[in-house]
Amino acid sequence: MWLRVFMDGREHSLHGFKMKEHYFDDLKVGDRFKSDPLEVTEKQVIEFAHKFDPQMFHLTRKSAERTIFKGLIASGWHTAAMTMRLFVQTLNFAEGAIGLGVDELRWPNAVRPGDVLAVETEIVDLRPSRSRPNYGIVRLRNVTTNQRGEIVQTMLANAMVPRRGKVNSDK
Amino acid sequence: MWLRVFMDGREHSLHGFKMKEHYFDDLKVGDRFKSDPLEVTEKQVIEFAHKFDPQMFHLTRKSAERTIFKGLIASGWHTAAMTMRLFVQTLNFAEGAIGLGVDELRWPNAVRPGDVLAVETEIVDLRPSRSRPNYGIVRLRNVTTNQRGEIVQTMLANAMVPRRGKVNSDK
Repeated sequence: MWLRVFMDGREHSLHGFKMKEHYFDDLKVGDRFKSDPLEVTEKQVIEFAHKFDPQMFHLTRKSAERTIFKGLIASGWHTAAMTMRLFVQTLNFAEGAIGLGVDELRWPNAVRPGDVLAVETEIVDLRPSRSRPNYGIVRLRNVTTNQRGEIVQTMLANAMVPRRGKVNSDK
Repeated sequence: MWLRVFMDGREHSLHGFKMKEHYFDDLKVGDRFKSDPLEVTEKQVIEFAHKFDPQMFHLTRKSAERTIFKGLIASGWHTAAMTMRLFVQTLNFAEGAIGLGVDELRWPNAVRPGDVLAVETEIVDLRPSRSRPNYGIVRLRNVTTNQRGEIVQTMLANAMVPRRGKVNSDK
């Protein structure tokens, strides 16, 4: 079940929504998951930039017009964070997905205010965790696109997610 | 000159601060830059999680205690965003650094509320941009550590930064 999310700077609660939980054992290599759309507002772009990436093409419309982007664009780290939001809500791993690392994070096209993003997740590889028998390691590719189907971010990541029927040794 | 930044969720302005601006031509392979420290608060960790990474080890102290982390930890994307903030302020590229991509982003240790982070940037490679003569491509390694010197994030990145005495063809 998809959950539509509009990020407006306020805190969101997931209580009250019922999404299908996933475990490692539910996944197969080649599985694909598509997120709901997420609209990016100018306010969010500027707010993120002030906190985390205070550069002229992210901070104000006016300063951004004088750059090679000829207008305001979102920080790549903002795009990465929005992608995580959509990924987390779509896959909804029981007890969460623990990020182990990311490879080949790329931003081939800029994200601009008003863009509507969506993430497609592909399961690239699956293996049990050697050190933690209650977990499996998922290798996945997340591709983030805008409303015109242009790719704004690609990444490969490894995440540790719980197995079904886990014993209690990790708790 | 270092600029101490405390991120408190409010907007920050860089006006009024005077930091040394860097151009591509100022850098040498092997150069290292150390950021000022940045304290991570519980409020920031929870706020970022609600917006971008709503998982139980990031959202509340109570839910986090029941996870393998036995307490609240910051989202890896929050650590990446804080690292960007420190990097941008330390290097302070004239007209900004345009991120082209990131490789080998890793989070070897968790970031917890109260931690004090700092980033060391090493210039790994430098080459002129083929397509944009006014810019150079910097390959850099950012290592983020906590107050105990433990590494909480490593990454390799390529960024496009302006050259000195650029002509006006890109404007």
